[in-house]
Amino acid sequence: MLKGTSASPGVAMGNVLVVKKQQIEIAKKLIQDIEAEKKRLSDAVEKSKIQLNDVKEKALGSMESDKAQIFEAHLMVLEDPELIDASMKKIEAEKINAEYAIDSIENMYLAIFADMEDEYMKERAADIKDVCSRIKMNILGIESTDLSALDKEVIIVAHDLTPSDTATMGREKVLGFLTDVGGRTSHSAIMARTLQIPAVVGLKDITSRINDNDYIIFNGETGEVIINPSSEEIEKYKKLKSDYEQNIKALGSFIDRETMTTDGRKVEIAANIGTPKDVTAVLKNGAEGVGLYRTEFLYMDRSTMPTEEEQFEAYSEVLKSMSPRPVIIRTLDIGGDKKLPYLEIDEEMNPFLGLRAIRLCLDRKDIFKTQLRALLRASVYGNLRIMFPMISNVSELLEAKSIIEEIKAEFDADDIPYSKDYQVGIMIEVPAAAMISDLLAKHVDFFSIGTNDLIQYTCAVDRMNEKISYLYNPFNPAVLRLIKLVIDNAHKAGKWVGMCGEAAGDVSLIPILLGMGLDEFSMSPISILPARKTICSLNYDDMKNLIERINDIETPEEIKAYTEKTINK
Amino acid sequence: MLKGTSASPGVAMGNVLVVKKQQIEIAKKLIQDIEAEKKRLSDAVEKSKIQLNDVKEKALGSMESDKAQIFEAHLMVLEDPELIDASMKKIEAEKINAEYAIDSIENMYLAIFADMEDEYMKERAADIKDVCSRIKMNILGIESTDLSALDKEVIIVAHDLTPSDTATMGREKVLGFLTDVGGRTSHSAIMARTLQIPAVVGLKDITSRINDNDYIIFNGETGEVIINPSSEEIEKYKKLKSDYEQNIKALGSFIDRETMTTDGRKVEIAANIGTPKDVTAVLKNGAEGVGLYRTEFLYMDRSTMPTEEEQFEAYSEVLKSMSPRPVIIRTLDIGGDKKLPYLEIDEEMNPFLGLRAIRLCLDRKDIFKTQLRALLRASVYGNLRIMFPMISNVSELLEAKSIIEEIKAEFDADDIPYSKDYQVGIMIEVPAAAMISDLLAKHVDFFSIGTNDLIQYTCAVDRMNEKISYLYNPFNPAVLRLIKLVIDNAHKAGKWVGMCGEAAGDVSLIPILLGMGLDEFSMSPISILPARKTICSLNYDDMKNLIERINDIETPEEIKAYTEKTINK
Repeated sequence: MLKGTSASPGVAMGNVLVVKKQQIEIAKKLIQDIEAEKKRLSDAVEKSKIQLNDVKEKALGSMESDKAQIFEAHLMVLEDPELIDASMKKIEAEKINAEYAIDSIENMYLAIFADMEDEYMKERAADIKDVCSRIKMNILGIESTDLSALDKEVIIVAHDLTPSDTATMGREKVLGFLTDVGGRTSHSAIMARTLQIPAVVGLKDITSRINDNDYIIFNGETGEVIINPSSEEIEKYKKLKSDYEQNIKALGSFIDRETMTTDGRKVEIAANIGTPKDVTAVLKNGAEGVGLYRTEFLYMDRSTMPTEEEQFEAYSEVLKSMSPRPVIIRTLDIGGDKKLPYLEIDEEMNPFLGLRAIRLCLDRKDIFKTQLRALLRASVYGNLRIMFPMISNVSELLEAKSIIEEIKAEFDADDIPYSKDYQVGIMIEVPAAAMISDLLAKHVDFFSIGTNDLIQYTCAVDRMNEKISYLYNPFNPAVLRLIKLVIDNAHKAGKWVGMCGEAAGDVSLIPILLGMGLDEFSMSPISILPARKTICSLNYDDMKNLIERINDIETPEEIKAYTEKTINK
Repeated sequence: MLKGTSASPGVAMGNVLVVKKQQIEIAKKLIQDIEAEKKRLSDAVEKSKIQLNDVKEKALGSMESDKAQIFEAHLMVLEDPELIDASMKKIEAEKINAEYAIDSIENMYLAIFADMEDEYMKERAADIKDVCSRIKMNILGIESTDLSALDKEVIIVAHDLTPSDTATMGREKVLGFLTDVGGRTSHSAIMARTLQIPAVVGLKDITSRINDNDYIIFNGETGEVIINPSSEEIEKYKKLKSDYEQNIKALGSFIDRETMTTDGRKVEIAANIGTPKDVTAVLKNGAEGVGLYRTEFLYMDRSTMPTEEEQFEAYSEVLKSMSPRPVIIRTLDIGGDKKLPYLEIDEEMNPFLGLRAIRLCLDRKDIFKTQLRALLRASVYGNLRIMFPMISNVSELLEAKSIIEEIKAEFDADDIPYSKDYQVGIMIEVPAAAMISDLLAKHVDFFSIGTNDLIQYTCAVDRMNEKISYLYNPFNPAVLRLIKLVIDNAHKAGKWVGMCGEAAGDVSLIPILLGMGLDEFSMSPISILPARKTICSLNYDDMKNLIERINDIETPEEIKAYTEKTINK
């Protein structure tokens, strides 16, 4: 029995296919013939383009459009002049071999993403790595493993899976993934959740402990893997698997249901997205809106700022496909751990307490205004809600709003159309904003609580710092009281409150948030149906009573236990 | 007219003495005769000892004991085996010249202090630099400038002043300081405030713009310096100077006064200290107690942890000299920007949100228990109050208190005496602690609000980050509301609340803190008399009304202006 990191829930049982990859060794060599070396690189790039177009066409033919989008994204990476031109220049300047040149440029890119926890950023890094690996293999003439022609159902065991792997594989034959490396936000883990197949990652050396056709069982929820199980174990897990699958099937009935408690309180469940392509999964899971569209993605992995036109296209696309449902688009939240290659930000001793998000946007009004113009122009295509991140005082909010007014005056003068019905709101993620939420409520249409940062600042704990991450807990009584204060203050002013941090999708916390009166819950598409099922099973009045009873409980652990006990009574 | 950084208030007018220092150039040289080189160093160390003992004796003779203490401290640095032994070893190992060896070791030491804002740490660094410079000058045979025999009143203009300079100078002849470099926490600035003479620092190149015997006027409050002023200017500043001095004299009458509002509300004004020697200034300024003894100083500038015995000595000394007045001793607050040479702490991406203070102490119980044993043993010598820094939840507090109980059981078993009358309290400096101050109040005797960190976390702003330091403001309405919440919760539980952050000594903020019901104000000794004068001039009931009226004001600037208007009405 092995134990890894739980990456996607569900039970899988079956025979193994071990994907053994040839390790590519890249050595630095000095070369004589620069032109020949540049041709090695451009030939490999051309070959990569042909391969990618080929798999893209196949994917389009199979009607699995998300696969096609991945290869389309890879083709875009390939056409990024920064990547190839920079490698060409490196060959010239340093007289080095093509594979070493592209490898160096790749590492420079990946360093930008290295410290990021965000799922979208991790995916972006995985794409770049994947494309560069394809180019390097083409330079070196190495054939890649083909997972497209699986002839029987298998559990894939690999060192790690790349976006190309997961996109080309015959998914209907894949029972689950197990990988040596990776955490909950690695590409393999994200992909498994998206495809809704079980997965365990970070199993260290499972590829060398297991052989093709070994029979195994694993539980994606607990991270347990059993190699060659006994017949009792097989029986036990068959039961578990069927319970789980029945549960999932039952969830399907919640896709078109209203989100309403047993005593008639209606709330909204929305989804968090990072790019227009995510809308597919949002609609498939029955979201009632987009509660957080993180626009950072538009700005990353490029060598220049996105133009107003490019942004307008992206925002319009999401608004159109979600219409008439509301879409909250958050303005640029960069800085802290998120950097842009073309935006110089000084090194900071405590980046989380530094120049980021709205602070950076108010400092760089050129960037901010371009984004707000694109947003307002897109407003005619749907139900737009603009949201400012990291507001910590009234002045910042008023300054940001005044830029919108300035743009409207310009649009009126230039006859550029925009909707009059958009809303303006702010993230509540800095304790100061929560404490003065009564003052801020007067100037907004809505709040959305960002729990990740709110917990971080309220408890003075960097959640990525392993030494103290035990202090990071959404059941922390101080955090819960701040959340309640924000909801109460908003309601007093007649405004609505959502939540778009990870906590909003946590079914163990939902009873508390519901009892406090939260109006909107925004989460990963995958969490929507379990969340809706939970809310539909709860009684609002009971949850309001729960809130009163947990108010004097001293520790997060006791609050969680008391809540569970109340729900299961 | 020049403008620098205001370092110490007051107006000075008079002739200039420019202190020109020879720049010591240290070059690395490879040497042959290691023993001869080591002798160069040990001779210079011996010579430095003789010089320091000499000036120390002179200072003792002159009854200015604070001067003697500085040289005593320098003698201790000189005897620090880390400094001299390490330099000797460097000469041996690298076959380099003595002055280069000690210079390298000095730089290594100073790097530890480089990022610290704290006044005590800056002073410690100034001492080390001063001693090393003395040794290097003795190695190279350079004579130092002597400021002890000033024969007329002068304004000292220097590139910078060292602790030796300020201690040897004939202070009664010094009208003020002006320096090229430094900020508000440089040694020159701290010393000027301690000696209560006007000073302006950071004037860039004033030493090259001014000549001996030039007549100048400067205002330590505004940072303005006028070279060769007109007769109107002289008249204007004479008036300013006499007003200022009258004001200071009037303050003297507050030394032995009770701190009581016009309508009879009594509060306590205490002092913040870093070492036992600071008690002199505390008593001289009429403090009613020590509100914060920062024990970090005991742990720094050494190569090993201080023993229980060493700590016991220091704590006892402060308790005895302050008795019967209360002394709040804060347990070790290390981590974040404060590091110890002998304590390995991993690099953290956001050190202010990391493993520091109580978190570190609960992780390293060996260190913590030694300190708590020393504190309890010292408790018999005075009125002890133990304070834990950076508490963010109830569990941390209970765990820390349980260690005290454990020690008491050991002491009872071993017949080691301790007082039963000590108090236990916590710093409120993390927003989470403020939010659950009702829950925490049940387990403590008192709270002390640490405004520096509370503002930092509440507003998510690193105050040392220049780009966003505009967001750091003690009048921030969110911060004020948290402070009020803490005071209200403590009073409901029958506990008292102090404040030991910089804000407690800010006379513009004191009306608000007083109106909220703060019981104890702890500050730098130098701020005590102005603070007491302010409180004695205020009406408590009026200030309580003020609190209600500022509750809905949106910005720090408006709150400050409204408060000023109310006070001056």
